[in-house]
Amino acid sequence: MKQVLLIITLVLILSFNIFEIDVNKEKIAPGIYKLSIGVIDKYTPFSLSSVPPKLDAISKMGEEIRSIDIDRIIITKNKRGCSVAVPLKKDEQIYGFGLQMGSFGQRGLKKKPIVNDHPLNNLGYSHAPQPFYVSTEGYGILINTSRYTTFLCGTENRLKGSVSKLGEEGNAKIEASTEELYKSKESNNYVFIDIPNSEGIEVFVIEGTDVKNVVERYNLLAGGGCLPPIWGLGLKYRTKANFNESQVLEIADYFRTKQIPCDVIGLEPGWQTATYSCSYVWNKDRFPDPKRICNLLNDKGFKLNLWEHAYVHPTSPIHNSLVDYSGNFLVWNGLVPDFILPETRKIFGDYHLKLIADGVSSFKLDECDNSNITRGSENWGFPDMSVFPSGIDGEQMHQLFGSLYLRTMNDIFKNINRRTYMDYRSSNLFMSSFPATLYSDTYDQKEYIQMICNASFGGLLWSPELRESDSPEELFHRLQTVLLSPQSVINSWYLQSPPWLQYDKEKNNQGLFLSNSEEMEQNVRKLMNMRMSLIPYLYSAFANYYSKGTPPFRPLIMDYGKDLRVRDIDDQYMIGNCIMAAPLYGNGNKRKVYFPEGIWYDFNTNKMYKGGQDYEIETSLHELPIYVKSGSIIPIAKPVQSLSENTVFDITCNVYGSNAQDFTLFEDDGITYNFEKGDFNQIVLSIVNQKGIVNRTGTFKTKRYIIEKWNFIQ
Amino acid sequence: MKQVLLIITLVLILSFNIFEIDVNKEKIAPGIYKLSIGVIDKYTPFSLSSVPPKLDAISKMGEEIRSIDIDRIIITKNKRGCSVAVPLKKDEQIYGFGLQMGSFGQRGLKKKPIVNDHPLNNLGYSHAPQPFYVSTEGYGILINTSRYTTFLCGTENRLKGSVSKLGEEGNAKIEASTEELYKSKESNNYVFIDIPNSEGIEVFVIEGTDVKNVVERYNLLAGGGCLPPIWGLGLKYRTKANFNESQVLEIADYFRTKQIPCDVIGLEPGWQTATYSCSYVWNKDRFPDPKRICNLLNDKGFKLNLWEHAYVHPTSPIHNSLVDYSGNFLVWNGLVPDFILPETRKIFGDYHLKLIADGVSSFKLDECDNSNITRGSENWGFPDMSVFPSGIDGEQMHQLFGSLYLRTMNDIFKNINRRTYMDYRSSNLFMSSFPATLYSDTYDQKEYIQMICNASFGGLLWSPELRESDSPEELFHRLQTVLLSPQSVINSWYLQSPPWLQYDKEKNNQGLFLSNSEEMEQNVRKLMNMRMSLIPYLYSAFANYYSKGTPPFRPLIMDYGKDLRVRDIDDQYMIGNCIMAAPLYGNGNKRKVYFPEGIWYDFNTNKMYKGGQDYEIETSLHELPIYVKSGSIIPIAKPVQSLSENTVFDITCNVYGSNAQDFTLFEDDGITYNFEKGDFNQIVLSIVNQKGIVNRTGTFKTKRYIIEKWNFIQ
Repeated sequence: MKQVLLIITLVLILSFNIFEIDVNKEKIAPGIYKLSIGVIDKYTPFSLSSVPPKLDAISKMGEEIRSIDIDRIIITKNKRGCSVAVPLKKDEQIYGFGLQMGSFGQRGLKKKPIVNDHPLNNLGYSHAPQPFYVSTEGYGILINTSRYTTFLCGTENRLKGSVSKLGEEGNAKIEASTEELYKSKESNNYVFIDIPNSEGIEVFVIEGTDVKNVVERYNLLAGGGCLPPIWGLGLKYRTKANFNESQVLEIADYFRTKQIPCDVIGLEPGWQTATYSCSYVWNKDRFPDPKRICNLLNDKGFKLNLWEHAYVHPTSPIHNSLVDYSGNFLVWNGLVPDFILPETRKIFGDYHLKLIADGVSSFKLDECDNSNITRGSENWGFPDMSVFPSGIDGEQMHQLFGSLYLRTMNDIFKNINRRTYMDYRSSNLFMSSFPATLYSDTYDQKEYIQMICNASFGGLLWSPELRESDSPEELFHRLQTVLLSPQSVINSWYLQSPPWLQYDKEKNNQGLFLSNSEEMEQNVRKLMNMRMSLIPYLYSAFANYYSKGTPPFRPLIMDYGKDLRVRDIDDQYMIGNCIMAAPLYGNGNKRKVYFPEGIWYDFNTNKMYKGGQDYEIETSLHELPIYVKSGSIIPIAKPVQSLSENTVFDITCNVYGSNAQDFTLFEDDGITYNFEKGDFNQIVLSIVNQKGIVNRTGTFKTKRYIIEKWNFIQ
Repeated sequence: MKQVLLIITLVLILSFNIFEIDVNKEKIAPGIYKLSIGVIDKYTPFSLSSVPPKLDAISKMGEEIRSIDIDRIIITKNKRGCSVAVPLKKDEQIYGFGLQMGSFGQRGLKKKPIVNDHPLNNLGYSHAPQPFYVSTEGYGILINTSRYTTFLCGTENRLKGSVSKLGEEGNAKIEASTEELYKSKESNNYVFIDIPNSEGIEVFVIEGTDVKNVVERYNLLAGGGCLPPIWGLGLKYRTKANFNESQVLEIADYFRTKQIPCDVIGLEPGWQTATYSCSYVWNKDRFPDPKRICNLLNDKGFKLNLWEHAYVHPTSPIHNSLVDYSGNFLVWNGLVPDFILPETRKIFGDYHLKLIADGVSSFKLDECDNSNITRGSENWGFPDMSVFPSGIDGEQMHQLFGSLYLRTMNDIFKNINRRTYMDYRSSNLFMSSFPATLYSDTYDQKEYIQMICNASFGGLLWSPELRESDSPEELFHRLQTVLLSPQSVINSWYLQSPPWLQYDKEKNNQGLFLSNSEEMEQNVRKLMNMRMSLIPYLYSAFANYYSKGTPPFRPLIMDYGKDLRVRDIDDQYMIGNCIMAAPLYGNGNKRKVYFPEGIWYDFNTNKMYKGGQDYEIETSLHELPIYVKSGSIIPIAKPVQSLSENTVFDITCNVYGSNAQDFTLFEDDGITYNFEKGDFNQIVLSIVNQKGIVNRTGTFKTKRYIIEKWNFIQ
């Protein structure tokens, strides 16, 4: 009987293979189409996305733009898997593929957005791989899969007329109309996408007027951008891995005594009884009373962040309950929880809720990426051949693991109506709405700037961090970038003291401070205060991310896409709508800055620059290299030492140039999700007859912005 | 109707998935078992192997050794593909995976034997990847697939009891008997093998008494080792890519004038009208009369070798005929022939037969590996998503391409009863019987030695080559290794003159010779003559390769497997049964040499070394660092300038130590396949009563060895 069924099945499979399969086309939102073929996986990035799309906001984006002819997208399927071919125009450039490091424009490259803890030769390996790119022609192509996918971005020549001939299925017949035998190298005019091991595939085509518009639509499809708690925008300081309670408190006191603003203290592995893998149990030798350390820090105005990863140590209280909900391979001898299952999320979440109840405000979710897949000797990750109780395999789980882990952890906070801002080391598609930033052990300053740009194409936030440096100059360059990013982190997990007291790792740990450490501290204080003065502006940018999907940090290509010069600029970026950052890197305190159209003002000196050209600009180490677009109103807050639901910002509005556009501040409690139910105010700042006007609307009761001073800069 | 069939099919597929699938076990030769599960690909490395196994020779290997319990090998299958788990004993080491560079013992590594033109961090990428490893326990595991396969060689911990529970199919139930929840790091006692995208898999288990015995059995399964034409064992010199007829002849004359032995002249791309891709048409500007250059070279005792690759340029005479027999993507704008199809092989072969008729003796088959798959910007290879008329895809074709190409080219020669010795840049499984050596653009001297060792585990031959150098010392080190390898190549494809006249590339091409170039020439002559004196010995080693499958070049682990010290030795190797090579590398003329059990003699000085220990040994630049085992008879020939069917070797037999074992010389015409029909002699050299005895048996009419002198070394 077995054999008979087998034979029938095989016969049917074979006959099935020569059927012509139609490509299904479905409009899932204005300007967003889903093309599909074959049998779709039960668990895809989109099906696993737990946040509903912001369809209203998408509808408000206006009329549809037919920026790509979807009938020219070829989707085929054969025994090996599915393939997609998307036409490329001659001067088209594409961006994306997640948190890429090393390349910005991706045309001409073979990209494999696969999760990995280190990048490799612009191949696409990344902490946060996304099978998604955005084109300068104003559309995005998203492959809704967790299979390892390869994008050949205009690198290949295909034998024309050969597609249908060779027994592929799908809509390839469209392409088989001409009989030209070969094409020249110049006409590599397709992105070919290879999705092996797939029985079917969904391709999302996201249209838009330009790159930014496409990205906004994608972010809204993912539920909109995140709005971090207000304290998430302040400074985070991660203490040395083996610090105990008194050492942690000493560092906390250092910040307050020296009046260097700081909001979050992070503990590294030493807080637990066992790592790696993780017990998630407080180590009482170092922290005798977990509630006490939480309370002491909270009293000083700090939130507490705890490091962990998701591999569950045999001694963990949740280990035994999770055995049936984990994969069949271990990592560091720990279980790999299958977060697709609600049971897993509940066990993991319920336990962590207790830590939160003790006073923990956020977590750092480490190693949810994969060990370096490019080294024969690195193997801490579970193998691709793993199987999980939900039915997915290790390959799929690798791509999804960071997203699922973050979702599990964020849901705990969301369920108790608290916002958090987490660190995580891996992401995937449709994660814009989750308040968390990505980080990496890589440490190239130029790449760190580029990653701020690249992350934004896929609704991701990148958090560069400052550890050690080779020189004071490098330290301040790094700190400038850190302060001009979605999350500002000093990661001293292997440093005894803050790196500005001694930037050299060895000397730092020997307690040998710099002779000018007080001057260093003073500069650091100035820089941190500048970040704090921009908190209302940043918070407003994040509010736009939430409601409109506009990335708060984004490369110039998004705002100035018609200017061909900005296509390759990956070391400058917009913060919100009015400020351009051009962080320094390399040697010296000067760098070339390109200004797009219009007039720009140096934020530090108010010096004016005319757009459309490059300038060589010097920025001192205690200034932030940012520039304001003429016609902007920038709310500048008097710096505070830390941020909370009680913070009231004393605002001065800087008005740059003439014809200033309105600026809208976002006012809410800063820590709950009440804003989602409408409990917020919008404060429109505008200039009428050369005079500043404040117009507050909304239902939120507390005034968090005092706006009395206006400062006109011409 | 389509939908109904689809639904029926899917229902059956789903029900099928929960069936228990039996693992089929089949004995395919003494000591060789095939385990299989599921639906096997039509084209596998074994099914494509065109050479019948030497079953008689396998049978003569004696009784079966149950070195592994095949019931403990777990094969499972799920939607993603097939998996295999093979138990590892505590002190077991494994070797193989094809032409590996960078690692020797593979335990503890994740290995992906995937075709690539550069290796990467011991990950397994290689010109000649083989999903095949050999264990010190005396068995080999071969996965008969052209899918990209990953071997986790004792790197993983698995959650016990989880295999059957998670819905895998196959014989996993055997493993699910205990309920231990996790295992410690020390007990990583499986090789886990991941074969995604496979609907079934064949696992060959090759038993043996030790590593060598397993490799021999594998080689015999592949049809036995190759026996190159006698001239293939002489020197090959590749001339500069843009040389014309007179420049090539000038080089040929140089060798004869200087009395430096040389057998083969190789032409690089310049001989063709179009590269890359290839026209396969003589460029008449450089070579006005192809027959003339062939004849002129042949008259001087040279064979001619031509460079090409398999991507067919639009202007090639065979292009149009091959359009229907090629893949749907182009490489360098050229067709990628589907060599699986007999039509393709015939078109390609018939054309090349004309080149052979003009006097060409062999070819260098370049770029049949893949472009570097680890760089986003390298994309000359066809994509994995390609489809070919035979029905295989690009992934499978990549793994097989070099093998299929070599087979196509070798068959042309075989059909006219001529032996050839080719260079090729990619290989796979079951290629032992094909007379060709692998080469690479990599150029690490230590790795080149290691590759001689590693290649032998899978019936491959590695040809290190000499190009430029940084010092005279490095040049001679490289040359020593070149002369102690399966093929001796000086690759001057970008050098105007032989590298010993000027080892620096720039100066060489400017014609600036070394001041001591005559001394250099003299040393080179000495070394080349030493190689020539060993030709009968080498030819005999290859005859054993042919008849018994014994690799002519092999690491010490094959001959001295019981000595744990040799497990890690990858910079020394056996040549035949009596000579051990320990090529120099790095700085200085000394190196550490380990001698296995017994007494050993320095080939140059006759100095004796006692086995079981290391010695620091100096070798001068004009000597070969080789050592002879006591009890050996080594036939030493008087060097000749080139080798042909007319060469008669004037032999002195060196007898080392006491109790000399017999040595068998192989005597045939050296250029045809007549030996396969029995037209050869075996000449047994033996010592009886301290006197050398020559015993010639066989039907071959011509005496090619004159053996009169015996030289006893005590």
